[in-house]
Amino acid sequence: MIIIGELINTSRKRIARALEERDIKYIGRVAQKQASAGAHYVDVNCGTRLEKEVEDLPWLVEIVQNVVDLPVCIDSPRPEAIEAALKVNRKGVPIINSVTAERDRAEAILPLVKEHGCKIVALTMDESGVPRDAHSRVSIAEKLAGLMEEYEIPMEDVFFDPIVQPVSSDGTQGVAFLDAVSRIREEFPQAHIICGLSNISYGLPNRKLINRTFLIMAMLKGLDSAILDPTDRHLMAAACAVEALLGRDEFCMEYIKAFREGRLEV
Amino acid sequence: MIIIGELINTSRKRIARALEERDIKYIGRVAQKQASAGAHYVDVNCGTRLEKEVEDLPWLVEIVQNVVDLPVCIDSPRPEAIEAALKVNRKGVPIINSVTAERDRAEAILPLVKEHGCKIVALTMDESGVPRDAHSRVSIAEKLAGLMEEYEIPMEDVFFDPIVQPVSSDGTQGVAFLDAVSRIREEFPQAHIICGLSNISYGLPNRKLINRTFLIMAMLKGLDSAILDPTDRHLMAAACAVEALLGRDEFCMEYIKAFREGRLEV
Repeated sequence: MIIIGELINTSRKRIARALEERDIKYIGRVAQKQASAGAHYVDVNCGTRLEKEVEDLPWLVEIVQNVVDLPVCIDSPRPEAIEAALKVNRKGVPIINSVTAERDRAEAILPLVKEHGCKIVALTMDESGVPRDAHSRVSIAEKLAGLMEEYEIPMEDVFFDPIVQPVSSDGTQGVAFLDAVSRIREEFPQAHIICGLSNISYGLPNRKLINRTFLIMAMLKGLDSAILDPTDRHLMAAACAVEALLGRDEFCMEYIKAFREGRLEV
Repeated sequence: MIIIGELINTSRKRIARALEERDIKYIGRVAQKQASAGAHYVDVNCGTRLEKEVEDLPWLVEIVQNVVDLPVCIDSPRPEAIEAALKVNRKGVPIINSVTAERDRAEAILPLVKEHGCKIVALTMDESGVPRDAHSRVSIAEKLAGLMEEYEIPMEDVFFDPIVQPVSSDGTQGVAFLDAVSRIREEFPQAHIICGLSNISYGLPNRKLINRTFLIMAMLKGLDSAILDPTDRHLMAAACAVEALLGRDEFCMEYIKAFREGRLEV
């Protein structure tokens, strides 16, 4: 399971403040905490300060990469901000988060992906918005696959994101997402499938319970990466248990190691 | 989700002692605790004292039914013990747990099921033992379905149990079970699918984490009932979250109710 740590995001008040105050220490600590909790990438998102994104995003990338040896996930829809962030990247191959099947957006972002040999999150949405059912999500994934081919981006570098929507407002959204994961996994076995997990629980109490239950279900359907809070020990423990249960963890050695290291305490 | 409370089982030392001492109060309390935790059936098993089962099993059924308004799950392979337990049953339709595809066992037990109009747990094993793969589990389920037809037991009363085996000793057992659930669900949509959950985690640390993760996965594949510890609040909370996520809980009202009643505290 590829874990992208979601905590450095200015939609979180404490991060917004730290960015504003150029609080290098705080942001560095959040990056380090996510790395030691088992993240493989650190997401950086400062989309709430749109007017400053071109300057803030590369600053965040530098701060993060000063303290952790992980690649970043550059979380922005804006080509200028992405390009600025790519210029300062120096730790491995970043993920760009994200492109959609909207022609304009693809034309602006995919050349950057190709040029820098990045990985890319491809959201299954297009000009008509976010689809409500599995079928439309899969159709848009196919359209996205066509765009990737056009820009010669290998399927191995693509992270399809079938877009998690809150189950509280529409009870069909959990199943629609899971079915889409299942079909995209079948159609594009070489691709990754990712999601921003916590949206599923929007509007419900005990969101963490919903999030980790849904992560388990989505992993069973073929999800192999997620943007989530890696410091949520329950959540990481659940992912570890899934790997053991699916027989991907030989003799459950990773699970037992995690237990010995105290990572499965709940 | 149909929950069968597993705690009244003489393989648990405290229950064995209570049975030996005819400790009505203790056994009654365990039954009540399971009922208030949300069990729909109370399993009674005194298989460790084989020589006394014919006398002990009906005694347990009476003690349980004196204190809770739930049907029992009569957990014994022995027709004489089952028959004795059925004689004292007075709370609804019991489940008999279990029959296998072994001809002798089926011939002894299925007439009782038919006569008393019971429900029946049908283990997917036969003369050659417990199958290791999904395909053999499904073949035996088909054989069992044939037996049910022979004895005119409606599919709605059958709980197929594809037999959970520990994932620690054979990493393929989780997937084999899940695949079997999925195929049995497809082939016999009217039937129930059940399991004795905790066997999955045998030999591993933090068994409860493995158990509840596996329950979530199995529910996604079509499991609709389980023999488990209903007083494990984490486990029951996970099952409740699955129902909400699968859109079976309109507007997540049951989930929100469970939260308000403090049942989702973890």
